[in-house]
Amino acid sequence: MTLKVGVIGTGMIGRDHIRRLTEVVSGAEVVAVTDANEVAAKEVAAGLPSATVHANGEDLIADSGVEAVIVCSWGPSHEQYVLAAIAAGKPVFCEKPLATTTGACRHIMDAEVSSGRRLVQVGFMRRYDASYRALKRVIDSGAVGVPLIYYSGHRNPSVPAQYTKDMAIVDTAVHDFDVTRWLLGEELTSIRVLAARPNSHGGDLQDPLLMILESTSGVLVNVETSVNIRYGYDIRGEVVGEVGTAALAETGQVVVRTNNSVGVRVPEDWRERFIAAYDVEFQEWINEVAAGRELTGPSAWDGYAAQVVCDAGVEALYSGDRVAIELIGKPALYS
Amino acid sequence: MTLKVGVIGTGMIGRDHIRRLTEVVSGAEVVAVTDANEVAAKEVAAGLPSATVHANGEDLIADSGVEAVIVCSWGPSHEQYVLAAIAAGKPVFCEKPLATTTGACRHIMDAEVSSGRRLVQVGFMRRYDASYRALKRVIDSGAVGVPLIYYSGHRNPSVPAQYTKDMAIVDTAVHDFDVTRWLLGEELTSIRVLAARPNSHGGDLQDPLLMILESTSGVLVNVETSVNIRYGYDIRGEVVGEVGTAALAETGQVVVRTNNSVGVRVPEDWRERFIAAYDVEFQEWINEVAAGRELTGPSAWDGYAAQVVCDAGVEALYSGDRVAIELIGKPALYS
Amino acid sequence: MTLKVGVIGTGMIGRDHIRRLTEVVSGAEVVAVTDANEVAAKEVAAGLPSATVHANGEDLIADSGVEAVIVCSWGPSHEQYVLAAIAAGKPVFCEKPLATTTGACRHIMDAEVSSGRRLVQVGFMRRYDASYRALKRVIDSGAVGVPLIYYSGHRNPSVPAQYTKDMAIVDTAVHDFDVTRWLLGEELTSIRVLAARPNSHGGDLQDPLLMILESTSGVLVNVETSVNIRYGYDIRGEVVGEVGTAALAETGQVVVRTNNSVGVRVPEDWRERFIAAYDVEFQEWINEVAAGRELTGPSAWDGYAAQVVCDAGVEALYSGDRVAIELIGKPALYS
Amino acid sequence: MTLKVGVIGTGMIGRDHIRRLTEVVSGAEVVAVTDANEVAAKEVAAGLPSATVHANGEDLIADSGVEAVIVCSWGPSHEQYVLAAIAAGKPVFCEKPLATTTGACRHIMDAEVSSGRRLVQVGFMRRYDASYRALKRVIDSGAVGVPLIYYSGHRNPSVPAQYTKDMAIVDTAVHDFDVTRWLLGEELTSIRVLAARPNSHGGDLQDPLLMILESTSGVLVNVETSVNIRYGYDIRGEVVGEVGTAALAETGQVVVRTNNSVGVRVPEDWRERFIAAYDVEFQEWINEVAAGRELTGPSAWDGYAAQVVCDAGVEALYSGDRVAIELIGKPALYS
Repeated sequence: MTLKVGVIGTGMIGRDHIRRLTEVVSGAEVVAVTDANEVAAKEVAAGLPSATVHANGEDLIADSGVEAVIVCSWGPSHEQYVLAAIAAGKPVFCEKPLATTTGACRHIMDAEVSSGRRLVQVGFMRRYDASYRALKRVIDSGAVGVPLIYYSGHRNPSVPAQYTKDMAIVDTAVHDFDVTRWLLGEELTSIRVLAARPNSHGGDLQDPLLMILESTSGVLVNVETSVNIRYGYDIRGEVVGEVGTAALAETGQVVVRTNNSVGVRVPEDWRERFIAAYDVEFQEWINEVAAGRELTGPSAWDGYAAQVVCDAGVEALYSGDRVAIELIGKPALYS
Repeated sequence: MTLKVGVIGTGMIGRDHIRRLTEVVSGAEVVAVTDANEVAAKEVAAGLPSATVHANGEDLIADSGVEAVIVCSWGPSHEQYVLAAIAAGKPVFCEKPLATTTGACRHIMDAEVSSGRRLVQVGFMRRYDASYRALKRVIDSGAVGVPLIYYSGHRNPSVPAQYTKDMAIVDTAVHDFDVTRWLLGEELTSIRVLAARPNSHGGDLQDPLLMILESTSGVLVNVETSVNIRYGYDIRGEVVGEVGTAALAETGQVVVRTNNSVGVRVPEDWRERFIAAYDVEFQEWINEVAAGRELTGPSAWDGYAAQVVCDAGVEALYSGDRVAIELIGKPALYS
Repeated sequence: MTLKVGVIGTGMIGRDHIRRLTEVVSGAEVVAVTDANEVAAKEVAAGLPSATVHANGEDLIADSGVEAVIVCSWGPSHEQYVLAAIAAGKPVFCEKPLATTTGACRHIMDAEVSSGRRLVQVGFMRRYDASYRALKRVIDSGAVGVPLIYYSGHRNPSVPAQYTKDMAIVDTAVHDFDVTRWLLGEELTSIRVLAARPNSHGGDLQDPLLMILESTSGVLVNVETSVNIRYGYDIRGEVVGEVGTAALAETGQVVVRTNNSVGVRVPEDWRERFIAAYDVEFQEWINEVAAGRELTGPSAWDGYAAQVVCDAGVEALYSGDRVAIELIGKPALYS
Repeated sequence: MTLKVGVIGTGMIGRDHIRRLTEVVSGAEVVAVTDANEVAAKEVAAGLPSATVHANGEDLIADSGVEAVIVCSWGPSHEQYVLAAIAAGKPVFCEKPLATTTGACRHIMDAEVSSGRRLVQVGFMRRYDASYRALKRVIDSGAVGVPLIYYSGHRNPSVPAQYTKDMAIVDTAVHDFDVTRWLLGEELTSIRVLAARPNSHGGDLQDPLLMILESTSGVLVNVETSVNIRYGYDIRGEVVGEVGTAALAETGQVVVRTNNSVGVRVPEDWRERFIAAYDVEFQEWINEVAAGRELTGPSAWDGYAAQVVCDAGVEALYSGDRVAIELIGKPALYS
């Protein structure tokens, strides 16, 4: 009953996932690892009860003891490993991005469609966050009416030195794009990117940004990225419906009164905010894969759609214009 | 149409009321003042358009140009001035306490009852606070069912050096007693006083205290006084009903996110918290007196009942026992 | 010491202001009224102690017993009365809009500048709301850093049948424009207007709208108008600064727990939300005028600037384009 | 590496724990079950990959394949199974209560002390709730100063017909007693029980109750049980410290604005509120037992102390008096 998992990539996030599979969630065992840095892979394997170290991802995928694959290697290598897993007929969980180009995403979808069944899941973990799920339940319940506007705020206290201008879109807002598509159950059709007065802590970055997107049914989506805001890691989401609104609540668990103020804590970083979502994400994936049930998590189509929105967003960031978001027809496998 | 008011006592609170009558509320004019300190009285009068300075309260009350009297002198003198105003048939607003002994309160009630109409109002200003009024509306609406428990929290950042042990009851909790009676529409029938682990900032005071009272219908009332709590001036109130609860909300007007916290401001002191209540208190009193309408504010009975609760509270503080609160029959004038 | 006021226009808002001056605020007396409907004016005067009824606004302004003028007549008549008051050298409080065209606003400014002193105040009452004032104090304190983005949400449960498409801008969002200028201490320089998926309760209206404005220093301003949202009258405002954010708090005064929910009340309409702001607005204006102090309220310049933003907004609503907001040089009188 | 667990008692809670061990938490396997109702036990075993059904708890404990024992049978049987597990040297997780009499609790402690190591854990799951843990962290951080008062509110929408008067203490408030001891790191030394005006939905029950306890250092503890309050399952906790307060925040994840109200959800029942705490409780216990680490969860001493408080509480409920809580000297094993 235990799912035998192979992990490609034993960097920071790979190790964290291995810890999760080993110590937190139920029903999986890490039986194989590999990494571009073989020493790192061996080190990680040494801490596991019985994990084989493979020379490369293809060997790991070919290992008959490996029932499912997790891809945590660097972005440009995702395509090849995901394709190999599909070729081997093995379920593959791929950290975001699914691939770094729209073309690569399409190759993956083509292969998966040809295989005839869903094998690929992408690591958009916000869909597993309890608050977002509660928000989606409220939307779907109709309690606030049909959504007309959605505000998505993505605030980081700071970003590392290597964070470039485009990353506000492809690395930060990509989460907002995905979760918006999921909450609304619709595709995004256009994007504008506007730079606000620059935050003086942001160096040469254009920060903050406001992005205005439209969805198929005409919902206006307002994405704010503020990545040098110092006060905390704060994820905001509010849907404005026809007869009410619903918003993510604060996550602080204790109300503290001190120094003429009463309030709750804002998380320090994404780990504090989303760690439980990663746990749920893996638990559900393991349960579905182990039981042979159809996957319900983010699909290759979701990875592809996010990539197309990002491409349009980067174009809009440089042009200052409204850019249309154009998707191919959605393969039946993903409907 | 302007109500001509005489003010007895031009200390800090008297001056504040004079400012209020002159610059804030509508329909009144201060035409006479007096104070034990004649120099102070003259100084105050000099800042007013046309105020006579009287040698004493009795003279002020006798002044035919004075239509209504405000008593802000020190507590032990309240009885004589209130009685004189009743004798003169003039409406009198008396700052709390109505008098410093139960006997004095009864003298005042006797005189007022003999006069045949309500002339006396006591300065329990919480009844004019917008939040308490909203709380009373919710209770009276039945939305939370019949009240079963009421929590009243009275927190001060600090108290002056002359604050004595008894003052936690007669000066601090007296406001909680009055507002509880008003919210519940019932009398209090017993009191216990328990001292918690002492706050090290409180010197020899027994602070904080928990007081457990019962009302006529059996509502349990839990009054907390914490008078050295540093973090702010915080007034809490929550009624637990049969099917729900209702509590005073925070009063902060802005939600601020900084330094890993999101919250609102707690007031600095009672002025910040209740200044608007004093304004409303006077405006309503002036409007009622000027129009000759029946007074709706705290009556001599309310002043008396509060005094009896305080006496029982002080006894309970020293004895550690449950002390019954025994009131005389309520004169028809106050029903 | 009492300011003698004449009121032009005794319709709904005029009557409400007369009530306010008579029963709520301190220091003013209504001594003259006029209205296009003479019967209405006489009816109102009958309820006042000593108010003259004038045949028209010019006569009222010329009345030597009138020290200050309030203009509550319909919009197109504002210009002539404000100009007449300036000509008479009398302070004039004009309900918004100052005038219905940019040209008329300029005529007023020209006349006021020629008079050499500020005589005109415009009725943008949000600046007197306690929550907005607290928000401005937080911004000005620097606690959240330099403002970079400002979100302004203006939500109405419903609008009357005669509400037209343009009114979302000239009647609704105009308040957001003014309060944004005041909060930021800057002018607005451009506007885009985007229509979201239409609310099915809004008939032919384009509702809700998102308006994206820029300020002189580059702050992005996001104004949402949702005028058929049913759930209540909800005014939202959040400034995103360099190191934090500050937002208007909820105004509910009681936290109620019933039926599996804990929360506070959302106001029913603008009266419930802003009634106190009108009181403060008049009290401050009366105090300043009576004392001959310089006016600090919204000036003719503010009325003009709001008008220019509205004109640009309407153009942007129809064109779908970004429209520049171009102001004349600011006369020294208004700096 | 997988901990082999035997479960005594396959009623509702036993089945839920089996589901938890099988599908949610990591590192355990249910290898044996037993129940007074053998049919029920067989039914449960049939749904597990490889679980033996034993005739009784003693046989299950003796099974050499069972490494750790979970006791979920009815209360009066806890003593015998816990003692048997201790005798067998096997870790035993016992649902609350540890035993139904103080004497039985002492037998268990004696046996465990004789065994020389901690083998027993009691199912006080609130200690594993994220909100309570955050509250404890704030207290321990010193941010609000030394605790002086603790308010604990325990509200149930309703209770089943078989709920008796004593159960408000031994079944409901027992959780408050335990979590208070844990939060404060102190024992409770006395208890008073006061009945409020009875809730008309509570039939013959005395409901709600206020219980006033004292701790070793003099902290006053106010426990409210309201078990027919209809509006939801609401767990409240607030510590009043020397310089501030800290309280459990609301747990609602979405802020909804509809029908003139803005608020969050109150849980339906204890499952919704505490389900995650049960998961964490088992995960930590499994990890500690499997690794042979010292147990950190609620000990037999905690089970004993809770029982003594309950006994005193029941006495106080009937007598109306303050009843002292007297514990034996704490064995070194539990320090």
